[in-house]
Amino acid sequence: MKKKYLMTPGPTPVPAEVLLTQAAPMIHHRTPDFSAAFVEAIEGLKYVFQTETSDALLFASSGTGAMESSIANCFSAGDTVVVCRNGKFGDRMKQISEAYGLSVIDLAYEWTQVVDPADVATALEENPGVRGVIVTQSETSSGVLNDVKTVGAIVREYPDCVLIVDSITGIGAVECKADDWGLDVVMTGSQKGLMLPPGLAALTVSQKAWKACERSNLPKFYFDWKRYKKSFDKQTTPFTPAVSLVLGLNESLRMIREEGLENTIARHARLAEATRRGCEALGLALFAPPEGRGSAVTPVWVPDGVDGKAIVKIMKEKYGVTIAGGQDDYAGRIFRVGHLGYFGEFDIITTLAALEMTLDELGFQFERGAGIRAAETVFMGE
Amino acid sequence: MKKKYLMTPGPTPVPAEVLLTQAAPMIHHRTPDFSAAFVEAIEGLKYVFQTETSDALLFASSGTGAMESSIANCFSAGDTVVVCRNGKFGDRMKQISEAYGLSVIDLAYEWTQVVDPADVATALEENPGVRGVIVTQSETSSGVLNDVKTVGAIVREYPDCVLIVDSITGIGAVECKADDWGLDVVMTGSQKGLMLPPGLAALTVSQKAWKACERSNLPKFYFDWKRYKKSFDKQTTPFTPAVSLVLGLNESLRMIREEGLENTIARHARLAEATRRGCEALGLALFAPPEGRGSAVTPVWVPDGVDGKAIVKIMKEKYGVTIAGGQDDYAGRIFRVGHLGYFGEFDIITTLAALEMTLDELGFQFERGAGIRAAETVFMGE
Repeated sequence: MKKKYLMTPGPTPVPAEVLLTQAAPMIHHRTPDFSAAFVEAIEGLKYVFQTETSDALLFASSGTGAMESSIANCFSAGDTVVVCRNGKFGDRMKQISEAYGLSVIDLAYEWTQVVDPADVATALEENPGVRGVIVTQSETSSGVLNDVKTVGAIVREYPDCVLIVDSITGIGAVECKADDWGLDVVMTGSQKGLMLPPGLAALTVSQKAWKACERSNLPKFYFDWKRYKKSFDKQTTPFTPAVSLVLGLNESLRMIREEGLENTIARHARLAEATRRGCEALGLALFAPPEGRGSAVTPVWVPDGVDGKAIVKIMKEKYGVTIAGGQDDYAGRIFRVGHLGYFGEFDIITTLAALEMTLDELGFQFERGAGIRAAETVFMGE
Repeated sequence: MKKKYLMTPGPTPVPAEVLLTQAAPMIHHRTPDFSAAFVEAIEGLKYVFQTETSDALLFASSGTGAMESSIANCFSAGDTVVVCRNGKFGDRMKQISEAYGLSVIDLAYEWTQVVDPADVATALEENPGVRGVIVTQSETSSGVLNDVKTVGAIVREYPDCVLIVDSITGIGAVECKADDWGLDVVMTGSQKGLMLPPGLAALTVSQKAWKACERSNLPKFYFDWKRYKKSFDKQTTPFTPAVSLVLGLNESLRMIREEGLENTIARHARLAEATRRGCEALGLALFAPPEGRGSAVTPVWVPDGVDGKAIVKIMKEKYGVTIAGGQDDYAGRIFRVGHLGYFGEFDIITTLAALEMTLDELGFQFERGAGIRAAETVFMGE
């Protein structure tokens, strides 16, 4: 027997309280019981998205389904959109936009850079008629946090341009205020800050986004927002929902409400800071730049002379701690510690301790215990 | 406390063995453990779809997602398809086809009729260049079973025309032989014969369907079959899968293999026959015609003078037995008893007994016990 620790940015650990809901007997979805649960879930989602003026929609799909839905519902063939990308998921938004025949103004950055809102402002000024700006708030691939608040203030000035924010690993981990910041569409997935198994995706739709939806002519059915809205007016779903996950969502939303969203976000900030300082104390370099580091995941450069894949492998096989490797160009060059969702201080201690023992085994030179000491310093508020 | 019985054609009851898998700790999907489980699930799906030559793909979505994927992947804008429809889900296939700009040859039947394969043959003869035929095998809305075997033999003669079969409530309940019958795409959903919570949809893709997919130019991303195939070659998924449901699927597939698919189908036939004979013995009329009755669900006409919605309500509230009402034009005019998936003989006895007591309360004249007697006769093989 080896105790296992899931330290990845999604799927994330599911609290036992939520897991148990998944083992409850099945109920039918066209019943008052399910309708009541569904309405509660939608209200809870509006709380975590910090919106009162947008609608919240819920799909049985992974987060990519929500990403695709935002393209298929907001635009028409030939529309021009600005895609800001500095990681794998920004790249995906560009791919989806192109798959739907949109014309993409490509604001591409290195994965280690943040998106510069001034570039968005320039792109909108230089290209009249842009219909949308798409930006990833929290890049799961790089740990970079983009300043969607400032982007929101820019896009707000363009009445026919919607701002679509992929906050799949942002929601519940970092501040993300749909209403206050003017974010027209904000999305997340169940297996992230919502502490559920994968299989649900949620997003918000502002009045501006509904206006865009009205003129959209792209083909859609399963992800057709209007069908979800029309059904929600009758407290139901257009297609069979993922019943168990919706019931589980209410349990995790209850836990978030009990903690208070601001406290949830503060906890994530503290855990992220401890992870970062712990890694730096071991002599490791952080991947994301100081001006934009999220609280969902901490990517770390593999030090020279150390086999990056061996770090992930030893952590998992010898210590039972699953962390993520790098994606695409960064496979083997970085590793990523997730601390998104159901995480506490000792999960970070555990991970840092496993990392210390792993790096030692791999011959990396550092002071054992230094990572833990740095994390404790953060936790003690010093 | 009131014991509850879910007698609907989806979601269907989930066996405790499967429910418990849903409460297991989360694992990451990019791991050898998940890959092994995923490959096992795909192999098991090929067993229930009765195919060795098609690929099986699995989506995190409801069944409608799989329906849409079959349109978006097999066709191009302006293609002509024959849609056979005699119920709500056939109607949906027409809606999806139209949403994607296909030209639909509409073979529309009453909900109480079966699709006539001769009409398909005629439509294909009279309209050269038809790219697809779409038919629902088991209509959840009406209980009608369409003869997809004969349709398969017809479409097989057209090398550029694919046959798409919605068997969402057929798989596991009625014979459906993808390979032997020449069905190019066959689909199901998790919350049906597969005895899982909703949230997964699966389908098969024949070599002919892959050929169609190659020339398809409709926009798609989340449901892009080629992405699933490419990822499966690396034993993984293009997007985060519904991990818990995939693990649960292996448990339900294990149960089906243990029973043996032929026996599973025979059990469904027996339960359906007992339900039909039980209802007829009470003096009720069956909705589906004798020449095409499936084994997933038995729709029954509400007798004259009885309030159809009251039947469903009393069954649920007084006896804890959830059955389904009619859909669309048949709301209040029929009720539907599901017996798809994890059902045994005494579930039918329970339902018939609740129905007898409910009909008696509503003033309908019949001999109490007659329904049970008829069902017992079926179960005793007389």
